Amino acid sequence: MSLQEWIKTLEENREETLSNRRYLHEHPELSFEEKETSAFIRNQLQSYGIEDIRTNVGNGYGLVATIHGEYPGPTIALRADFDALKITEEADVSFASKNTGVMHACGHDVHTAALLSVAKVLQQFRSQLKGSVVLLHQNAEEVVPGGAKSMVEAGALDGVDYVFGIHVSSGLPAGKVGYCVNYGSAGSDSFVIHIQGKGGHAARPHQTHDAIIIASQIITNLQTIVSRKVDPVQPAVLTFASVDAGGEAANVIADRADIYGTIRTLNDSVRKFMKKQLYRYSEITAEGQEGEVAIDFIDGYPSIINTPEEVDLLVGVLHDYFGKENVVEIPVGLGGEDFAYYLKEKPGAFFYVGGENEAIKANYPHHHPMFKLDEQCLYQSGEAFLALVAKYLL
Amino acid sequence: MSLQEWIKTLEENREETLSNRRYLHEHPELSFEEKETSAFIRNQLQSYGIEDIRTNVGNGYGLVATIHGEYPGPTIALRADFDALKITEEADVSFASKNTGVMHACGHDVHTAALLSVAKVLQQFRSQLKGSVVLLHQNAEEVVPGGAKSMVEAGALDGVDYVFGIHVSSGLPAGKVGYCVNYGSAGSDSFVIHIQGKGGHAARPHQTHDAIIIASQIITNLQTIVSRKVDPVQPAVLTFASVDAGGEAANVIADRADIYGTIRTLNDSVRKFMKKQLYRYSEITAEGQEGEVAIDFIDGYPSIINTPEEVDLLVGVLHDYFGKENVVEIPVGLGGEDFAYYLKEKPGAFFYVGGENEAIKANYPHHHPMFKLDEQCLYQSGEAFLALVAKYLL
Amino acid sequence: MSLQEWIKTLEENREETLSNRRYLHEHPELSFEEKETSAFIRNQLQSYGIEDIRTNVGNGYGLVATIHGEYPGPTIALRADFDALKITEEADVSFASKNTGVMHACGHDVHTAALLSVAKVLQQFRSQLKGSVVLLHQNAEEVVPGGAKSMVEAGALDGVDYVFGIHVSSGLPAGKVGYCVNYGSAGSDSFVIHIQGKGGHAARPHQTHDAIIIASQIITNLQTIVSRKVDPVQPAVLTFASVDAGGEAANVIADRADIYGTIRTLNDSVRKFMKKQLYRYSEITAEGQEGEVAIDFIDGYPSIINTPEEVDLLVGVLHDYFGKENVVEIPVGLGGEDFAYYLKEKPGAFFYVGGENEAIKANYPHHHPMFKLDEQCLYQSGEAFLALVAKYLL
Amino acid sequence: MSLQEWIKTLEENREETLSNRRYLHEHPELSFEEKETSAFIRNQLQSYGIEDIRTNVGNGYGLVATIHGEYPGPTIALRADFDALKITEEADVSFASKNTGVMHACGHDVHTAALLSVAKVLQQFRSQLKGSVVLLHQNAEEVVPGGAKSMVEAGALDGVDYVFGIHVSSGLPAGKVGYCVNYGSAGSDSFVIHIQGKGGHAARPHQTHDAIIIASQIITNLQTIVSRKVDPVQPAVLTFASVDAGGEAANVIADRADIYGTIRTLNDSVRKFMKKQLYRYSEITAEGQEGEVAIDFIDGYPSIINTPEEVDLLVGVLHDYFGKENVVEIPVGLGGEDFAYYLKEKPGAFFYVGGENEAIKANYPHHHPMFKLDEQCLYQSGEAFLALVAKYLL
Repeated sequence: MSLQEWIKTLEENREETLSNRRYLHEHPELSFEEKETSAFIRNQLQSYGIEDIRTNVGNGYGLVATIHGEYPGPTIALRADFDALKITEEADVSFASKNTGVMHACGHDVHTAALLSVAKVLQQFRSQLKGSVVLLHQNAEEVVPGGAKSMVEAGALDGVDYVFGIHVSSGLPAGKVGYCVNYGSAGSDSFVIHIQGKGGHAARPHQTHDAIIIASQIITNLQTIVSRKVDPVQPAVLTFASVDAGGEAANVIADRADIYGTIRTLNDSVRKFMKKQLYRYSEITAEGQEGEVAIDFIDGYPSIINTPEEVDLLVGVLHDYFGKENVVEIPVGLGGEDFAYYLKEKPGAFFYVGGENEAIKANYPHHHPMFKLDEQCLYQSGEAFLALVAKYLL
Repeated sequence: MSLQEWIKTLEENREETLSNRRYLHEHPELSFEEKETSAFIRNQLQSYGIEDIRTNVGNGYGLVATIHGEYPGPTIALRADFDALKITEEADVSFASKNTGVMHACGHDVHTAALLSVAKVLQQFRSQLKGSVVLLHQNAEEVVPGGAKSMVEAGALDGVDYVFGIHVSSGLPAGKVGYCVNYGSAGSDSFVIHIQGKGGHAARPHQTHDAIIIASQIITNLQTIVSRKVDPVQPAVLTFASVDAGGEAANVIADRADIYGTIRTLNDSVRKFMKKQLYRYSEITAEGQEGEVAIDFIDGYPSIINTPEEVDLLVGVLHDYFGKENVVEIPVGLGGEDFAYYLKEKPGAFFYVGGENEAIKANYPHHHPMFKLDEQCLYQSGEAFLALVAKYLL
Repeated sequence: MSLQEWIKTLEENREETLSNRRYLHEHPELSFEEKETSAFIRNQLQSYGIEDIRTNVGNGYGLVATIHGEYPGPTIALRADFDALKITEEADVSFASKNTGVMHACGHDVHTAALLSVAKVLQQFRSQLKGSVVLLHQNAEEVVPGGAKSMVEAGALDGVDYVFGIHVSSGLPAGKVGYCVNYGSAGSDSFVIHIQGKGGHAARPHQTHDAIIIASQIITNLQTIVSRKVDPVQPAVLTFASVDAGGEAANVIADRADIYGTIRTLNDSVRKFMKKQLYRYSEITAEGQEGEVAIDFIDGYPSIINTPEEVDLLVGVLHDYFGKENVVEIPVGLGGEDFAYYLKEKPGAFFYVGGENEAIKANYPHHHPMFKLDEQCLYQSGEAFLALVAKYLL
Repeated sequence: MSLQEWIKTLEENREETLSNRRYLHEHPELSFEEKETSAFIRNQLQSYGIEDIRTNVGNGYGLVATIHGEYPGPTIALRADFDALKITEEADVSFASKNTGVMHACGHDVHTAALLSVAKVLQQFRSQLKGSVVLLHQNAEEVVPGGAKSMVEAGALDGVDYVFGIHVSSGLPAGKVGYCVNYGSAGSDSFVIHIQGKGGHAARPHQTHDAIIIASQIITNLQTIVSRKVDPVQPAVLTFASVDAGGEAANVIADRADIYGTIRTLNDSVRKFMKKQLYRYSEITAEGQEGEVAIDFIDGYPSIINTPEEVDLLVGVLHDYFGKENVVEIPVGLGGEDFAYYLKEKPGAFFYVGGENEAIKANYPHHHPMFKLDEQCLYQSGEAFLALVAKYLL
């Protein structure tokens, strides 16, 4: 009746864990299209003897399975996402993607395989548990609106007391685990600004409302939202990622331009402020040149806000299990992650397991065709999950 | 032995003139591809009995034919261009283009048909002429480098004393003729600014050199070339006509951007100054963001500079023939026209014949799919040419 | 009964003309304060026997005197302005200003002395004149609203048929005279843009509406009025001449900023357009940063528009008198001159008499402390006026 | 032998503490001119029986006094600054400044009076102390280079183990105390950018290099340093606080402009990066308009970086003494404070004592003519210092 016993069993399943991970890596599926992946997970869970499985939870192929402990106690949810990316794998691995053009280039295959083995162990030791474990096998993390939000809406967190999630990382050395205090990811919204001016002949600008001038002034003027309008201690990014303007000919003044971009923030009121400023300042700037804008705004994921007590508990567990020297506080970055939706409902935390290993070229950034991980992180992900569950339910 | 006699003969050829124009309109050919048009012209000229015809003069299908007068005297050159545009005709005419996607949307068919009939008349009255007439049937006016420059280089103006050209216009009422004093068109250069920055993740701008920021600053900063750096009494336009930047995704900072544009000037030193400023100021602006630019610059046509004595003579001829009330001075616009190359070599002038008639919807701008002309301008173009020749050679 | 006779008499008065000019140069008075200058002029005119003199015409010390010819005929007005500038003379002349801090640094002393001697000659030959001459001794040309407008309103041009004015120039070689066709000076308006933002601590920009950001965006954005919004063949200048913003300390964000500037145009509709754009675009730009602007706009002088017939006549007179080789067409500049108001009422022209002579350092720009003229222009100004009068009234 | 005993004694000195504070408030002195203030402090300390007093320590009137405890142990330094500001007091208090134009508008009078009474109590209980207390009465905090740096260089921290400082605050409710984790203030540098262009007549911009255009482009372009070039999770401010450009007249293009401003950062490498960018990007921007810049850069105070252990200890002390509910974590602001120099040498922390009380209008910002404090903060500052000393030395 101890964590050591669980870990020993997990280790006995190493071959199967590795096999699952590589199978998933070879058969990646795009967000919202993960039919086979979902079926694979269900089959695995059933083969472990887990009976309480909901499928197609929310807007896609999400699964929610529960391991009911023998004794009363809290319910802890563990999340692993399972979608892949539209990237053609170039990594030098024996188990490369067989689905050309699709790749697990973010490590979701590792998350899933790790959680499956955790489930197998916990189901086996079900009689020891003082409380229950909910397995959140989530679809579609990579593409807004993501799977998390709709799974929550479909009741995935009903009865859950705490929720934890992991992400493996090619930027954190293998052997290390990491955590963030407070914010864990950024609010990530995207937009298209459609500018409508009035075109004309390149030699007669005075008869036009030049859409390219408007676009440039929007890009230039709106820099001041971040540089002057947002509290400087609040991180905020406004990126104009692409511009498509004019295009007919060098002697035709553009009547329209489209600007694509994204907003990244931590604080929610800063997030709302920036959206509002994007609208009003774009409109005013266009008006200066007698043009107009229409904006398509896509609200993305909110920020992960880890809850202080669970971060404290998590850090304690990690210190005990991995040793203080292997646990690092990671400064928050401004990427997006829909795990944020779980933390809007329940206390918990999101943390990181290192998979970087330069010696085997496992140090390309996530979403890169050469992305690779030191598979050590596969086992340590499982260990971390088990250690957490032990803390709550043993 | 008078202009009246010539005009009477021109009028007797109205049917043929009209037929020629409509045939050409139905069979438009793109710049540098006007093989059939050129052959048609040669055949017509030969059928009038003109023998001194050079074909394939210069870089394409240009023709130079000479009508040798009976008596010694000056040589006057008359120019008509004959290429068409990549536009699908939408005008409601019975003789619409049969070459789908190509259209005489600028009136070069009228220039050509008018000059053919002028040639026929002059060849007929050759024995009256005190001097000679050179017919410049020019290819490829619409596309840089144009046909004029290379025809000049191939000797088209050898022995010529004066050169005149016309352009029909859907912006000048039918029945009117117009002229410019001094400048008659703009120096028209074009360019592509290739910006190279350094891309990256939308959430980490500090690791990038944002090509879209560079593009916007170039567009914004370079406005001062026209607003502050060029003598305000010297017309100058710097148009950025299209921008193509980024494009991969909303969460990727662009590593490159291309800006297409054009420069329009009258004065040649202003033209050189603006080209120089475009280079240096783009480079410096990119350097500010630690990016780089490479510029493809295409030197276009120079400005038409009409010579004062020939403008005076032309205006006198037009006053006499069309009546003062029908002759208007037209302020120079900043369009381009390769007739400029002839005037760099010889004295002369370029003038306009009105073809606008709202009642028949002949008032769309040139290069528009609905472009149409009041065909009255067809005959008046011929009349104007004959009146000019009469002034010099009778 | 000839111009030669007049010129001979003018030459006999050289000493007095020179003496008058130098007296005026030694006793300069600022615009609207020219009490002594005006009295001096009146005394001179009276001493010549001229009786029809109106003083204090309009908003200051302007004088209008009339020399009534013996015979009926047209009335021709000649204008000389007489105010000086707030400049401390540094020129090396024996007759330097005795009124420290005030200087005839624009040549109005020459205009006045020349016109006085012209008056003396014409009064003497009054019996030969077929028509009359009105002497417009005008106050306050240098400072808006100027004297010309109010003198016209006070009837200075009543009964006048033609009006001419001269300006000596340190930029035109002595011995030359010059003229403009059509426009002769620019519409010259000035303004102050008062920006009101919201100040605060330098470390908390998000709590402010930074007036310096607003000022910079106004200056940057409004460049496009000239570069994109005005017809490129229409000269236009928008100069922001000074900025006064913040000033309390380096750690206080400015709550206000003032921008001073001027607009220069030839065409009147361009002038109105630019004023309107200055208002709307400044307001919109400030609104983008949640600030406000209030604009003090001072309508200055309109453009001089010379009338074609009088320019032709003037050029003929100058050719005859000075020789073709000494008469030059001068491209219009964008300076201001309230002679424009006379030409809004009556036909006429404004022309230039050269006073540049490098050998004696008479080549500093007007309004410079070292401004000096070759006094040859003093006599030639009188000669030009007499030649013009002779053309109309002999 | 307990803190209670000390506090009781402090309370018995309330009248004297208040009297000292008000005396100092009535007799404020500007930074580097605090001769009388310094003498007052020395006299007070001597009157308490403190003998180890160094005067004129460093670059001004700073004092360092030591209370030597009876027993061996650590040395703890307490700092109070004593300079005032160039502000004319408008606050409604009976003890307003008698030195017109100078005002204790930042609360340094409170710091000083509180530390004096703390000194009196500790000197009285010297026999209980296991270690020593160093009193840092510091001059010139408000004006760079400040007093702290030179006092440190003059040995003020020799033998010191820990250093603490307080600041009263009109933005924190009276009764509350506050602290920052990690950063406690910003690196605060200031600069003047001198722009040299080439002036000229407002109507001839093409003959100039317009200094106001350069200034506007610098202000606009350099916004991207904060918005794009600094890691978004690193706070950074670049404020352009005042602009002085042109000024001669509305019709003269400015040949020069000065921009005053400040840079605020927490992280030291960001601080260096921004300084470097300010130089290079200003220079490049000016070069774009063919102008030049020269920059006067004044390195200001570095960031306060509180040491983690001492923050923990401080928070514990404050919790115990004031109650958890009265202790708040304060987000770091981007103000400057030269206490930073002490923490570059020794571990310690800087903390805040609330003096805000809306009922008595004690809620104006620091440096405001109406600045006022609830004097409760005077006693609580002393209590906090004593509680800290007790923790270390009892």
